[in-house]
Amino acid sequence: MKVIWNDKIVDRNEVKIDMEDRGYQFADGIYDVVRAYNGKFFTLDEHVDRFFRGACQTDLELPFSKEELKERLTTLIKINQIDTGNVYFQITRGIASPRNHTYPDPEVVAPVFTASATVVPRDQEKMNRGITASIIPDTRWLHCDIKSISLLGNIMAKHEAHKNGADEAVLHRDGAVTECSSSNMWMVKDGTIYTHPDGNLILPGVTKIVLLRAAEKAGIPVKEETFTVEQLKNADEAFSSSTTIEAMPIIEIDGCPVGSGKKGPIVEKLQQYYLNEVEEQCGSLRQNV
Amino acid sequence: MKVIWNDKIVDRNEVKIDMEDRGYQFADGIYDVVRAYNGKFFTLDEHVDRFFRGACQTDLELPFSKEELKERLTTLIKINQIDTGNVYFQITRGIASPRNHTYPDPEVVAPVFTASATVVPRDQEKMNRGITASIIPDTRWLHCDIKSISLLGNIMAKHEAHKNGADEAVLHRDGAVTECSSSNMWMVKDGTIYTHPDGNLILPGVTKIVLLRAAEKAGIPVKEETFTVEQLKNADEAFSSSTTIEAMPIIEIDGCPVGSGKKGPIVEKLQQYYLNEVEEQCGSLRQNV
Repeated sequence: MKVIWNDKIVDRNEVKIDMEDRGYQFADGIYDVVRAYNGKFFTLDEHVDRFFRGACQTDLELPFSKEELKERLTTLIKINQIDTGNVYFQITRGIASPRNHTYPDPEVVAPVFTASATVVPRDQEKMNRGITASIIPDTRWLHCDIKSISLLGNIMAKHEAHKNGADEAVLHRDGAVTECSSSNMWMVKDGTIYTHPDGNLILPGVTKIVLLRAAEKAGIPVKEETFTVEQLKNADEAFSSSTTIEAMPIIEIDGCPVGSGKKGPIVEKLQQYYLNEVEEQCGSLRQNV
Repeated sequence: MKVIWNDKIVDRNEVKIDMEDRGYQFADGIYDVVRAYNGKFFTLDEHVDRFFRGACQTDLELPFSKEELKERLTTLIKINQIDTGNVYFQITRGIASPRNHTYPDPEVVAPVFTASATVVPRDQEKMNRGITASIIPDTRWLHCDIKSISLLGNIMAKHEAHKNGADEAVLHRDGAVTECSSSNMWMVKDGTIYTHPDGNLILPGVTKIVLLRAAEKAGIPVKEETFTVEQLKNADEAFSSSTTIEAMPIIEIDGCPVGSGKKGPIVEKLQQYYLNEVEEQCGSLRQNV
């Protein structure tokens, strides 16, 4: 497999991350994941915009322009012949030795960029079946709007959900639902869709943008408002959204069915609109990709 | 320089961290720093105990016993001929490809351990002079008791303090002082020492343990109670504590002097008791080490 390491395309096994890379010792870096269908990126601009915003929020000077980054990522999926799959890319504040909390001088220490591409088929069967979730306290930091690699809070929450026998963690702060461990969270009640407003408590999802547009096109009212765990448990439908899972029905929470306990009509409609937008940008999808 | 990479001592430049090491992509790891004086570790047991607690809190299975870890770290400082210095050691949940939030099966994926030793002299001059601080909101996660490598919140806070022209960040949640960006925080008022109680909002400092013992020996009353930013600004003395800085006077906060604006008598006394305990464990220190 070929990957990007700084400004070069190299064999994956050639990449050597330094033990004092600040990403490894301080989680001092940001990342993003963008999806390709039919060998073409979907919503690449939005992902790259978010990556640049994150760099700005963390005072990390990027060594490339948006256009240069997009070119590199496009080359990466071509070289790896990715049809339907994900590109993961991250940048850290570089190698500063000896270890020191203080940001190094960007004139002296260059950031370290890595990116890899993986074939990840659409899991239509799972999107029909849905997943289960467990309610977990949101103990993450107060900059969840930055897509940083400082993710221990996220993965610990997901692990807690797994220990409870569920697929995913639905996070809450004092009873107010924020998002899932790596996806935005939505519920439907009496025909209206609810999702947490953007801000420092959730990631501004690119898939969220697409789904908000889909809901508007479909004429389904949306309120970007906080809702409680109690409201969620009494919702007609629930779903989560991210680049990889698109709109994923959540059919059971803490062992109890959500609504009918099956994928509901509104998430079904959003999935269709989402797919339409994918096909508009990337061309018609063959089945099972 | 020789370092430890998993169970081997190798040349620093031989270490090759994988781009999909979970420490690099999820901050999925823990660390500690222990200090040596006269080539002997100070409070090694306490640091190793905390490391093992952190592993337990994050469900990370360590591939060694406490005794084995202590032996390896002791070998490391001997080989590098460290007289006065720090050993940094960390472990991550290992290399799991392709990237996935879910914890890998520990039977399949082994953790990755790295450790290095650096000469770091005692900075007595700085401990006499003191440092300046800036009040910064504590936006970190709610497991600050885990010494994890998920440190972006910490280093961003320190960077904010630097932007404000101060040496260190004093963090607060809704006006209640928690700790500094990488040290515990203390204040003195009317002869009593105050510091935030242990719990999920601060790191249980090993130096804090030693200083609490020092205060007891010196007959100085201590209250492990939350205090406010306002109380701190009106304190007679303030100081922070960590393995490297021992007890460090904070002589100015947000541009205003704390108390006399110079190192106070109580922190002076604690520094002396701390040094006594160092010398009891590690032998007499020569000047300027």
